[in-house]
Amino acid sequence: VSLTETLSEIVGKSQLFEGDAIDDRYRWDFMLRFQSNPRHVVRPANTEEVSRLVKAAKASGTPITAMGGGTGSTGGLVVDNAIIMSLERLNRIHEIDPKSMTMTVDAGVTVQAAQEAAEAQGLLFALDLGARGSATVGGAVSTNAGGSRVLRWGMMRDMVLGLEAVLADGTIVSAMTKVLKDNAGYDWKQLLIGTEGTLGIVTKVVIRLRPLPISAQTALIAVPDLDAAISILRSLEGELAGRVSSFELMWGDFYDYVAGFQAQRRPQPMQGGYPLYCLVEALGGHPEADQEAFEAALSGKIEEGTILDAVIAQSERERQALWLVRDDLIEAFNELGKWLAFDISMPHADMASFIDEARANIAAVYPDARAMFYGHIGDGNLHLVTAGPADDADAHHNLDVAVYSAVRRVSGSISGEHGIGLQKREFMSWTRSEAEIQLMKTIKRALDPDNILNPGKVFELN
Amino acid sequence: VSLTETLSEIVGKSQLFEGDAIDDRYRWDFMLRFQSNPRHVVRPANTEEVSRLVKAAKASGTPITAMGGGTGSTGGLVVDNAIIMSLERLNRIHEIDPKSMTMTVDAGVTVQAAQEAAEAQGLLFALDLGARGSATVGGAVSTNAGGSRVLRWGMMRDMVLGLEAVLADGTIVSAMTKVLKDNAGYDWKQLLIGTEGTLGIVTKVVIRLRPLPISAQTALIAVPDLDAAISILRSLEGELAGRVSSFELMWGDFYDYVAGFQAQRRPQPMQGGYPLYCLVEALGGHPEADQEAFEAALSGKIEEGTILDAVIAQSERERQALWLVRDDLIEAFNELGKWLAFDISMPHADMASFIDEARANIAAVYPDARAMFYGHIGDGNLHLVTAGPADDADAHHNLDVAVYSAVRRVSGSISGEHGIGLQKREFMSWTRSEAEIQLMKTIKRALDPDNILNPGKVFELN
Repeated sequence: VSLTETLSEIVGKSQLFEGDAIDDRYRWDFMLRFQSNPRHVVRPANTEEVSRLVKAAKASGTPITAMGGGTGSTGGLVVDNAIIMSLERLNRIHEIDPKSMTMTVDAGVTVQAAQEAAEAQGLLFALDLGARGSATVGGAVSTNAGGSRVLRWGMMRDMVLGLEAVLADGTIVSAMTKVLKDNAGYDWKQLLIGTEGTLGIVTKVVIRLRPLPISAQTALIAVPDLDAAISILRSLEGELAGRVSSFELMWGDFYDYVAGFQAQRRPQPMQGGYPLYCLVEALGGHPEADQEAFEAALSGKIEEGTILDAVIAQSERERQALWLVRDDLIEAFNELGKWLAFDISMPHADMASFIDEARANIAAVYPDARAMFYGHIGDGNLHLVTAGPADDADAHHNLDVAVYSAVRRVSGSISGEHGIGLQKREFMSWTRSEAEIQLMKTIKRALDPDNILNPGKVFELN
Repeated sequence: VSLTETLSEIVGKSQLFEGDAIDDRYRWDFMLRFQSNPRHVVRPANTEEVSRLVKAAKASGTPITAMGGGTGSTGGLVVDNAIIMSLERLNRIHEIDPKSMTMTVDAGVTVQAAQEAAEAQGLLFALDLGARGSATVGGAVSTNAGGSRVLRWGMMRDMVLGLEAVLADGTIVSAMTKVLKDNAGYDWKQLLIGTEGTLGIVTKVVIRLRPLPISAQTALIAVPDLDAAISILRSLEGELAGRVSSFELMWGDFYDYVAGFQAQRRPQPMQGGYPLYCLVEALGGHPEADQEAFEAALSGKIEEGTILDAVIAQSERERQALWLVRDDLIEAFNELGKWLAFDISMPHADMASFIDEARANIAAVYPDARAMFYGHIGDGNLHLVTAGPADDADAHHNLDVAVYSAVRRVSGSISGEHGIGLQKREFMSWTRSEAEIQLMKTIKRALDPDNILNPGKVFELN
């Protein structure tokens, strides 16, 4: 029996695609130059089918890669002559339990669908990221997604209470618990989260929900330097205890460029020309008191001169407009020509010296390159967009070296939230020791001895 | 060369103890009946010595168990003819970095010493538990300690940014990072946390710190039933967004007994006789506004009758007095004669039916037994103290069965925060599936093929 026949028997003929019948969305890798050439695309209907597909892959020695929304940006989905298993049909929201503050969803449910379902019950699924409409819960778990509210509610890792997954031998392992505290044995869930589908395939998740905030205070503020930004962050975290949910930073050149581009469509919320811009948001449960506390905290900083300029959103519409400056980026970036994005993190204490060094490193190889920083500064996660250098492998490598060597010096991470995939594999050893990488490989070999699950991602076994 | 000579060479003669020279504190297991008979006790001075000791243990085929404060309660430290490696000399606080909000400490530093050092810099190490004076940071990491503030800041797992550990082959694996977001490869730290020293020995930790709260609102409230308690919790979590830090529950019989016993020494903060008592605490950064919000939230509940009675602490002294009702338990328990303590967790939605069933199960085997519930209700973690039945293995087993069968029915956990150790090993399969336990064993075999590190804890390899 051929693999095609076996796969077809498992998912049904209509859910198996090969050759030209494979839609481009299963080939395309978001933002990346890697070519994906799956031999088979399968769309299982349930966990049982996922398990049988993995067993079939293993029996035939064919690699298999689970696919969520396809919006990862590090080549984590790229396969060559392998099986792409799209989980798009695992899309049920099974339960929302308001008393236990949990929701139980299939891996293929989008982040946005899960957010909206929770909100309809007056609850918050706290993960939020630009790709919410396409990214799936399973993908978010597999990559330990971050986004703009990590400061307050943590990464996806911190929101997973229960998990069901299929291991490399097809075993379905399940702990669909709603319990917040569970120290009964190894927490294997934590091992699977963030391993990019290389140790198991997430099929179902119990998510911890939070009370839905009913007040939002949002401000765009201009500050003289990074030290001022961090001191404002710390002081807001203290004064508004627990309510500061986002603290995004945009360097002056980034703001001037992006807000300038966006000005074609809508008014700029604040003049350009300041050194740094922070987008600050506090979410709470008491509109008047929250607003008073927020404005009091900011006005103290304005009086003492730590804040140069401030715009506080007075309506939900104004709030959305402030967030668009930070979120509506792709068209502005595309206007730069070919661009590259970086995702790195580091301790706050080292951020200023990192920026200086990274800028200098880039200028040393590409004096005319643009390099604009922004990011989720509240949690130490920076993004960087570069443009100018040729769009080829050499230039990509040179820019990677320029940026990651500065990251290495400050003991940061070459991946704050996007993962390693294929793209950053060669740089893993720059911020991870040999002993760490060996330990990762030991775990991979123990759980997937035939190297069937999304092989070659994160590291190459040898 | 004998093992004794090798060990002595590594740590020095003065740090090796055998036979009668072994102090009782290395033999005694907190609250448990298990006998611990170490053959060697060693006290290494640093990570390098820990590594050499593990290598020596492995070479001679002798099990080795790392020891922190010795206040675990599940027999996790019990060894027979093996090496106890006390980490008490690894007790340096290396650095507090206020800008990055981190502290770097050796595994042997006590939780209290770390808390105090952070506080001296105006920062909060958020873990808090009754054993703070003896429990060590390394022990807290190895057991994923919980305590009374998990509701807001999570378990120890959520506070670990960086880790250094020694693996079963003596490899030192280190990721002493201060970074909040790091998705560069598998997060092996998460695998080691909470595995009770069976996969690696934690030697150094980078802890995430928080802004030190400057205001505390603390109240003891009486409520008619569990539904009322949970609805108050949810509504406070909403209104006081982010500030609710503890929500402890004491059932009426527990409060009446404990507060009655304590009344020999200090006045009872509230009359007995109510069905349930909650100890609620919110920590914030704005004393007046926080107090106003807290009192407003409670008075609404008093007016509508959800709160039957309330005492709000008006001073730090009154606050301490309220906490003593919940924390000053051992003498009151000892007055009951031989007592047993349980640590279980479950979803809020199932808590009421669990309590009924557990009480009925206990009464069915021991009609005259006392069974009093209390716990960290905010995070679904209950404790139960029983007294009355004979203090023998049969009675312990019967009580375990009575309680854990009720836990199993509601898909709870047989260990909310204390771990499995030896004590709960035989019940692991009651709330963990066979596939989960097999996965744990696969991981253990891969990382510790000779079963050298604290063998027989959590599960027995076979």
